[in-house]
Amino acid sequence: NVCSCPVSMHSLDGGKRDEELVLPINSSLSVTLHQDQLKTTTTAVISKDFTEDRIWLNGREEDVGQPRLQACLREIRRLARKRRNAWDGDPLSSSLSCKVHVASVNNFPTAAGLASSAAGYACLAYTLARVYGVESDLSEVARRGSGSACRSLYGGFVEWQMGEQTDGKDSVARQVAPESHWPELRVLILVVSAEKKPTGSTVGMRASVETSPLLQFRAESVVPARMAEMTRCIRERDFPGFAQLTMKDSNQFHATCLDTFPPISYLNAVSWRIIHLVHRFNAHHGDTKVAYTFDAGPNAVIFTLDDTVAEFVAAVRHSFPPGSNGDAFLKGLQVRPAPLSAELQAALAMEPTTPDGVKYIIATQVGPGPQILDNPSAHLLGPDGLPKPAA
Amino acid sequence: NVCSCPVSMHSLDGGKRDEELVLPINSSLSVTLHQDQLKTTTTAVISKDFTEDRIWLNGREEDVGQPRLQACLREIRRLARKRRNAWDGDPLSSSLSCKVHVASVNNFPTAAGLASSAAGYACLAYTLARVYGVESDLSEVARRGSGSACRSLYGGFVEWQMGEQTDGKDSVARQVAPESHWPELRVLILVVSAEKKPTGSTVGMRASVETSPLLQFRAESVVPARMAEMTRCIRERDFPGFAQLTMKDSNQFHATCLDTFPPISYLNAVSWRIIHLVHRFNAHHGDTKVAYTFDAGPNAVIFTLDDTVAEFVAAVRHSFPPGSNGDAFLKGLQVRPAPLSAELQAALAMEPTTPDGVKYIIATQVGPGPQILDNPSAHLLGPDGLPKPAA
Repeated sequence: NVCSCPVSMHSLDGGKRDEELVLPINSSLSVTLHQDQLKTTTTAVISKDFTEDRIWLNGREEDVGQPRLQACLREIRRLARKRRNAWDGDPLSSSLSCKVHVASVNNFPTAAGLASSAAGYACLAYTLARVYGVESDLSEVARRGSGSACRSLYGGFVEWQMGEQTDGKDSVARQVAPESHWPELRVLILVVSAEKKPTGSTVGMRASVETSPLLQFRAESVVPARMAEMTRCIRERDFPGFAQLTMKDSNQFHATCLDTFPPISYLNAVSWRIIHLVHRFNAHHGDTKVAYTFDAGPNAVIFTLDDTVAEFVAAVRHSFPPGSNGDAFLKGLQVRPAPLSAELQAALAMEPTTPDGVKYIIATQVGPGPQILDNPSAHLLGPDGLPKPAA
Repeated sequence: NVCSCPVSMHSLDGGKRDEELVLPINSSLSVTLHQDQLKTTTTAVISKDFTEDRIWLNGREEDVGQPRLQACLREIRRLARKRRNAWDGDPLSSSLSCKVHVASVNNFPTAAGLASSAAGYACLAYTLARVYGVESDLSEVARRGSGSACRSLYGGFVEWQMGEQTDGKDSVARQVAPESHWPELRVLILVVSAEKKPTGSTVGMRASVETSPLLQFRAESVVPARMAEMTRCIRERDFPGFAQLTMKDSNQFHATCLDTFPPISYLNAVSWRIIHLVHRFNAHHGDTKVAYTFDAGPNAVIFTLDDTVAEFVAAVRHSFPPGSNGDAFLKGLQVRPAPLSAELQAALAMEPTTPDGVKYIIATQVGPGPQILDNPSAHLLGPDGLPKPAA
């Protein structure tokens, strides 16, 4: 069984109220990105001949014993067992005793620091569900791997409801609007050179929950109203509202990282130049035409509309002149070259340029949820249950 | 009349609840630095022969009409008038109709980005009070110039009580402990190269009060307990407690800057390297021996004790190798050269070095409040009421 899963970019993230069950301290929203540009493909095979569970990520075998992977496997088998008990004589019942082999690859470099674990665990949950014949809500399975993975189980605009129950049964993802809802929306990922690997988001979030006085206040008193407002902006396709809230919320998330002790900084000097660039670009137009959001790393995710993409890409090229890789600077969706007006150049010139500060841009848009790939050539595991040489 | 005033470094700063009266949204604490290293010297002269108020800062005449300067002059003359009305036949009464000439110089480069306006306005208030014969509390006069100036009117450890009255009469500075209270305490100012002038603190604070949801929460729910704890740490000379609270509060102040919209970043890449250096240094020792705090700019102010200064300066030299100005790297108090253990070097080596990232260090300590200088050679204005050629 082969599935592909999308990467999603999220807003209004917070920490976890329960580390083991991976329950968040507040609800959050995400935009699922198109798989043509960013996806994980996963193959899972079960067989009586396999003597142990095994997993290969991007062609390299990984330790299957890591706790989050084990939690996913345990949870999917528990759901399969429940289903078998409900349906006596289920033809899949014997599958429960089978070991599984899993192979997973990304179509983008993991070194880029894009949140790949969410797509990875969503794909794992989705593919295992097919193999073990589970048809129930997979939010919990995916969530056990990586909290935000539950949001990659749907296309379009997705809400991860924090839920109230201590067992987390109501901490699930649901679609706010499908991928076809806002066709003009575009997403640019500005991949930034990082000097060193930043603090991992799981470790960072835990430290924030334990030490930041501002984080709890944000979760309880700021996020609920922002969730409602963000949902309204998406439903009404109110770009300036969506954009301003996205930026404010990214900034507030990073503020809680700075309020963590010792403090965490995911934004580097190039991230800050991008922030200033966006505000200058909007100020020049007298309108909020572009928004940034930053995850647990220095890469910027830019939201804009199709009529602004070309001019903004030109502004990025101007402020971060591509060095050696001028041709490969823009990946993904085609963007026609556009001139930069002298006025805009002057408005941006207040900030110095940084050659190679932005390594490349991935242009993409909102996309659908997990897809089942029927083409056998897409399978990552051969008939022997081991990764194909080409994979 | 000539006075010299100290520079102070503050903690627990917030925004203003009243811009015109310069009333803060929370109380704050500051440490007054020694005038041997950082001070402002001010001369004020009144004469019937002067046709207008005039002011010279660091030898250059400035616009005397700027609102904050006018507010100080107005307030001091109001206090002088009140005093004259109380005392009939006051010999100074005629002085009220006199215009004033003021000259002020800093003994440190203003380009270094050290908060010089607080010392400047404290000195202005103190000197004008002498000239106009005002003996009442000068907090309000100084505050009208620059909020934090009221803290430079005292030596040692100073609290600026936010007060509750809308007219600001109870928003005054008071000494928590004199400069002799904690003789082991040392202060190092790490002057960092800034690429561009950051957002001014007054403009930045106003934007934070208007747009940061976290700032109001901080002022109401975090700062009061921290003020009490900080006062206890100072009274008991509890360095680790003082140091941790200082760092946490600096981080939280900068978190509210990041939560401002558009966001403000006073910390640059070098500031962050200093933050990491301090945490690694403390982790290596298994004890909080050094603290950082950052004002509205990239310069770090380091607090430590006399037994740690030499080793920490060696660590800074190691992480930020002085380029051309090796000899002039350390200014102020003498610090004997100290070796860096191989273990500490290894602990610090995790962070790359940045040549010239720290331009120089000013080593200083806690100092006294304003001083009256009787030596006529210290006067900045000549018999003609104009700056002396040498000034």
